[in-house]
Amino acid sequence: MNKPQVPDFLKNIRVVLTRTSHPGNIGSAARAMKTMGLTRLYLVEPKVFPSPEADTLASGAVDVLEQATVVASLAEALSGVTVACALTSRRRELTTPLAVPREATPELVARAQAGEQVALVFGNETFGLSIGEVEQCNRLVTIAGNPDYFSLNLAMAVQVMCYELFSHSGFAMDYLKPAGEPATLDEVEGLCGHLAQAMDDIGYFRRRNSERLMRRMRTLFGRAGLERDEIDILRGFCKQIERVAAEHGKIERS
Amino acid sequence: MNKPQVPDFLKNIRVVLTRTSHPGNIGSAARAMKTMGLTRLYLVEPKVFPSPEADTLASGAVDVLEQATVVASLAEALSGVTVACALTSRRRELTTPLAVPREATPELVARAQAGEQVALVFGNETFGLSIGEVEQCNRLVTIAGNPDYFSLNLAMAVQVMCYELFSHSGFAMDYLKPAGEPATLDEVEGLCGHLAQAMDDIGYFRRRNSERLMRRMRTLFGRAGLERDEIDILRGFCKQIERVAAEHGKIERS
Repeated sequence: MNKPQVPDFLKNIRVVLTRTSHPGNIGSAARAMKTMGLTRLYLVEPKVFPSPEADTLASGAVDVLEQATVVASLAEALSGVTVACALTSRRRELTTPLAVPREATPELVARAQAGEQVALVFGNETFGLSIGEVEQCNRLVTIAGNPDYFSLNLAMAVQVMCYELFSHSGFAMDYLKPAGEPATLDEVEGLCGHLAQAMDDIGYFRRRNSERLMRRMRTLFGRAGLERDEIDILRGFCKQIERVAAEHGKIERS
Repeated sequence: MNKPQVPDFLKNIRVVLTRTSHPGNIGSAARAMKTMGLTRLYLVEPKVFPSPEADTLASGAVDVLEQATVVASLAEALSGVTVACALTSRRRELTTPLAVPREATPELVARAQAGEQVALVFGNETFGLSIGEVEQCNRLVTIAGNPDYFSLNLAMAVQVMCYELFSHSGFAMDYLKPAGEPATLDEVEGLCGHLAQAMDDIGYFRRRNSERLMRRMRTLFGRAGLERDEIDILRGFCKQIERVAAEHGKIERS
């Protein structure tokens, strides 16, 4: 199976970092973005940029840093954007509805798929977004977490949001799935019959309720979702049991 | 509104890091866990631990490191565990079903809520989990991402999984939500009537289709989900328009 391509509409999603203090966080954010197929990074008044520290932490995502757009105001970063999500973990005296990422993401994906430009806006590591910055956004998003320790690192927050977006993008992981063939119900039934015969041959049913035992085996196999290969292994095992039982019979007779 | 408590069952979820090379990643993972209310960290043969670098990156989550359990084998870390999820991004020749975090998480949460011990198992930064380690787990989880750059940092992967678990924990963010009072339909209708009157008073409807205009206003207000306060502001504005229009009328008459 071929590797699928990252969906093209992800290029309509911007990540905007405003007034970031630590260049390492910019690098880690770029790496987080690229792992989830995002590439458009906007930096509003970064304290230090470009920087070797950002490049180091970006690892293989230096291309995202090289293409980053550095601007002097959030308004510039949001030019052409229809929906901007302010990431915040503080209680805000605003009547913009507050959503968790899972609630906010489907709309962002739908708009980006329709060709609109949308943005995720992250504030400074220590102070978050200013009131003025939040007011330039038309959505508020909070990543739910431990209320007694809400110390989510900036790049971690970027990772979580990009992960949410990617997980709504309809990208299929099928190419990583093992190619096993599921057994049909009649194949499972054939195994059960074979197993019952083998159990009987070696005297396992003596003084036991064979129907009840087989019912338990049948539900176990049903739950496990057997593969065809596994049926083959188990039936081979049953065949060997029957063979040994037959020989044992011969030995006893002699 | 009081801050809610982190759900107690999260203590039944272990994060297991096997053969971690960089102590900084252990610290960042501890911080990631704590932001999402997880505290049980197991370290299988960490290269360096404890270490000042881990403590620095753990930030306020040094308590998670101090309580961490260091063991010599994955089997020890999984003692008492019913479901262990191996995190992997490679194609595995195993017939354990491969799930994305969102598919795998509800079962983990349900089991942890029922008092079972469950585990997330993360491999070495460079080599991932060995075949032997994966075989000790009964679930396989892959975080979907860019197939051309799957360079998710270890602590980032921990953050994503802990975020998923927390987002399924039923924790309500209501205490962060603004306490606005939504307007009722008749209050919105009252505003529309008032607005129509004000528009008429200042001659805005002249040569325009007033019904069509008001229909657009009504759908706009419906979409916006007005708060009672906002209705008050807008009706105050309408009242002022009517006042000015009336004075203007007087001025004209005079």
